[in-house]
Amino acid sequence: MRVPILKLHEYLLISIQVELDDKTALQFQEDLLTKIHDTGAKGIVIDLTSVDMVDSFIAKVLGDVVKMSNLMGAKVVLTGIQPPVAITLIDLGIHMRDVPTALDLEQGLDKLQLDLEG
Amino acid sequence: MRVPILKLHEYLLISIQVELDDKTALQFQEDLLTKIHDTGAKGIVIDLTSVDMVDSFIAKVLGDVVKMSNLMGAKVVLTGIQPPVAITLIDLGIHMRDVPTALDLEQGLDKLQLDLEG
Repeated sequence: MRVPILKLHEYLLISIQVELDDKTALQFQEDLLTKIHDTGAKGIVIDLTSVDMVDSFIAKVLGDVVKMSNLMGAKVVLTGIQPPVAITLIDLGIHMRDVPTALDLEQGLDKLQLDLEG
Repeated sequence: MRVPILKLHEYLLISIQVELDDKTALQFQEDLLTKIHDTGAKGIVIDLTSVDMVDSFIAKVLGDVVKMSNLMGAKVVLTGIQPPVAITLIDLGIHMRDVPTALDLEQGLDKLQLDLEG
């Protein structure tokens, strides 16, 4: 199963609405990096509204994909982090310190636009 | 399996990147109508770029979902229809006469914006 990635102008929008098992998460990582390369996207919003639980592996993959995307020149905003996901991330010591977050997809996109223009 | 639906302001964006079997297509139809109801979306872009084949059932479901969405007050634009899909649709006599189409997601969204503002 693959996580769909939507290209909108210079942004990539991803709403994770499937259950993220290990294989899907790694496939998503690979797909996203390929898509950044192919499209030259400058900004990425990963919306986690529908994700109500993460384990340590998925949390690590998410953290990694943010760092990898940054390395490739694309800014990532994580949106819609649910309370249990926030709890798990902090409990696991994954602080996502330098990762901008926002409440939902719209606000995430606004944040990216402000950032890339400013 | 479900087709993810992204809400962006007053629009819903759908990029179909899974294989549409009969069950998935019907689930998508139901999910989309529910989402229109929940969000009050005015416009919908269904991007078919990754769909390289449709059968008569899927084609009918797609045609139906457009009509149903219209009934609920949301305008639908189909984008990224691939040559084999266009051939199948016309061969099947599904002309989508009143359905606006566009090359890709961006142009579909532009079309909706023009339409809803105009």
